[in-house]
Amino acid sequence: MIPRTLAADLPAMIGQHIRIEGWLHRSRQLKSMTFLIVRDRSGLAQAVATDPEAIRAASLPEETVIAVEGTVTASPRAPGGAEITDPVITQLSGPASAPAFDLYRPAVTASLPAILDGAPTTLRHPRLRAPFEISAASVAGFRRALGELGFTEIHTPKIVQSATESGANVFGIDYFGAPAYLAQSPQFYKQALVGVFERVFEVGPVFRAEPHDTARHLAQYTSLDAEFGFITGPHDVMAVLRDALAAMVAGVDRDCRSALDLLVLKLPSVPGQIPEIPFADAQELLARHTSEDPRGEPDLAPAHERWLSEWALREHGSELLFVTGYPMAKRPFYTYPDPARPGYSNSFDLLFRGLELVTGGQRLHRHADYLAALAERGEDPGPYAAYLQVFEHGMPPHGGFAIGLERWTARLTGAANVRSVTLFPRDIHRLSP
Amino acid sequence: MIPRTLAADLPAMIGQHIRIEGWLHRSRQLKSMTFLIVRDRSGLAQAVATDPEAIRAASLPEETVIAVEGTVTASPRAPGGAEITDPVITQLSGPASAPAFDLYRPAVTASLPAILDGAPTTLRHPRLRAPFEISAASVAGFRRALGELGFTEIHTPKIVQSATESGANVFGIDYFGAPAYLAQSPQFYKQALVGVFERVFEVGPVFRAEPHDTARHLAQYTSLDAEFGFITGPHDVMAVLRDALAAMVAGVDRDCRSALDLLVLKLPSVPGQIPEIPFADAQELLARHTSEDPRGEPDLAPAHERWLSEWALREHGSELLFVTGYPMAKRPFYTYPDPARPGYSNSFDLLFRGLELVTGGQRLHRHADYLAALAERGEDPGPYAAYLQVFEHGMPPHGGFAIGLERWTARLTGAANVRSVTLFPRDIHRLSP
Repeated sequence: MIPRTLAADLPAMIGQHIRIEGWLHRSRQLKSMTFLIVRDRSGLAQAVATDPEAIRAASLPEETVIAVEGTVTASPRAPGGAEITDPVITQLSGPASAPAFDLYRPAVTASLPAILDGAPTTLRHPRLRAPFEISAASVAGFRRALGELGFTEIHTPKIVQSATESGANVFGIDYFGAPAYLAQSPQFYKQALVGVFERVFEVGPVFRAEPHDTARHLAQYTSLDAEFGFITGPHDVMAVLRDALAAMVAGVDRDCRSALDLLVLKLPSVPGQIPEIPFADAQELLARHTSEDPRGEPDLAPAHERWLSEWALREHGSELLFVTGYPMAKRPFYTYPDPARPGYSNSFDLLFRGLELVTGGQRLHRHADYLAALAERGEDPGPYAAYLQVFEHGMPPHGGFAIGLERWTARLTGAANVRSVTLFPRDIHRLSP
Repeated sequence: MIPRTLAADLPAMIGQHIRIEGWLHRSRQLKSMTFLIVRDRSGLAQAVATDPEAIRAASLPEETVIAVEGTVTASPRAPGGAEITDPVITQLSGPASAPAFDLYRPAVTASLPAILDGAPTTLRHPRLRAPFEISAASVAGFRRALGELGFTEIHTPKIVQSATESGANVFGIDYFGAPAYLAQSPQFYKQALVGVFERVFEVGPVFRAEPHDTARHLAQYTSLDAEFGFITGPHDVMAVLRDALAAMVAGVDRDCRSALDLLVLKLPSVPGQIPEIPFADAQELLARHTSEDPRGEPDLAPAHERWLSEWALREHGSELLFVTGYPMAKRPFYTYPDPARPGYSNSFDLLFRGLELVTGGQRLHRHADYLAALAERGEDPGPYAAYLQVFEHGMPPHGGFAIGLERWTARLTGAANVRSVTLFPRDIHRLSP
């Protein structure tokens, strides 16, 4: 048997006898010939059957897996200018049942629920698959950047004894008869491991029993977490985040040309210095230029985030904007307060194309500060005992951030709903496929 | 403030005024001077305090985080031949409480439970931290190899509607009021995604409600999964696995010199062709050369795996051995049978230094074959409906494998228990830290 050739390599093989293998993407029967389009991971290839036996062998349902042997012939009408003539067709799978919609049509008109219900097949559509190539290249870029900065990759427990953030939205689990929870974030572990490795990152699932059915929330998503020590303040964290984002964009730019072309996407440019605005100034701006006055609110509403993103694009030519110095009131207890401004914190959000993409900041690193912070919130330190212990053993000033991978991919690809850039999403209504 | 220098860079900075930051690894007070050893992610640095104020500032408990500014001076008695003189010491954390044992002593004599209970601190010991550097470099090598082979990284659901393997050892979870389970493996999803991407891999947590308290089982471990289509049989899968293992070893060899030296480790060489023995022949060998006769048994006992590993090293000079063609009886229903030998399968295990490290093989790819396989085992296809549907839509011949990361690291580092190479292990007795 001749070894397999990928579809994308055909144009360089004119005149050779080759074998391709893939899915029967499209079969078009004309009077005296049948055009076959075969799809493999590299792209599409065309074969033309003219003799009666090949035409008979070609009459298979779309999505059937086939091998095609034949001669590569120059043809201006074929993708890449080459097609396979005199094909001999072999069936590698059973004849395929029809997918939820025709995968060969360039546009996808199916509804999101129809796409998700049939995901194992519908994701084969090149336009629906492309975002995942972009997602994978982004993660590779993230890892590359952090690896170069001396970060160590970690894998932390997803089954935990107590919830990270005060109790809400956790999935309970029966752990050999004891109550336990699915981790909402690797926050406590990545902080503890700053004490071991100084600089750590994790790419892994996090779980939120999110009762709201919105376009941007999932019960499981992939979090790109980083945390590191010996910082002088939140700007050191923002600088690493900036480098990570630049590497993510560069990775997509390098590895996903065909996906970017197919979806007609323009990548953001990541400025050497991402513009930033203090939270209080952002509220001033909103009060001055919009019909709302959010001053005094402890957080930004989604509409405010959209307005600020547009402002940053207009004023600074940047699709990315740091909002710094959030009020302590809405940040978790481990947040480091801004020593210069009571009530405000050394934390930040990063807005990207109108949406909060990243939350990060400096954390407390002294044991006494943790006890005081919990006391001030009237929280019992008991459930945090294992976490708090870490800070009794010498922890450096540190901070970090978490990027929601699906939100990132949705913003990059213009997806209106994070579900369409999630492999088999989980939400309050969806546990299968 | 002068920027931070890493300990490892001191020998190249003789005569310069520098600042290092790290943990006070060891403080030794002599009559008129104090020797400080500071630990950071790059290694150890020595400072010598002679004036009374510096000596006073240096009298801090070990593990306190400090900054030391001073002049780098050549000194044959210091690590790397350089030490910091005239140090000015600043405290960056609170004074540290004592860890479970002295982290500065070269040997670790603490028990495994003591190490695990105090993990956030005990893992700072260079000998206990080193395996995780090796683990991270292994994963990076795995990804690099598969990326170069055209694999796409995936992130699949960890909350699933039905168990992958027939029901045993799953963690139940309350999913918005509906019953669900933690995924025991990404098996079904990685197969489905072969239909989308052809070649996929995932590095992620898998969950087993393992009731046995053994040295090689965990309730959560990290699985390096790969799956790909258009194979001609199990040897294509074994070839990719071989390349992945070679890249993992190469990654460790390149990135972990100091960890390898510290633990005095010798990496295995991965032969271009890993030796292999059919399961039935392995049983013959055991019957002929040991006091046991395992012929007729459907699986190998741990003692058999150890004997076969020794045999492979003796006969083939290889620490890796493929055992191929396992009996169908003990393999999951999706296993592809060996067409030439009824009762045997196109699956394999890889033994490494006496232990099963990888399981893999060719899977069924035709819908009718799945129905027949389930019927033969008397299993109801109902719970597998979403999975089975995939095979109605055209799936190529495919296969894959899963490497248990902790087992790999344990074998590489000679750890007797997988727990000592797992960050915060989970088992029937352990849910914290």
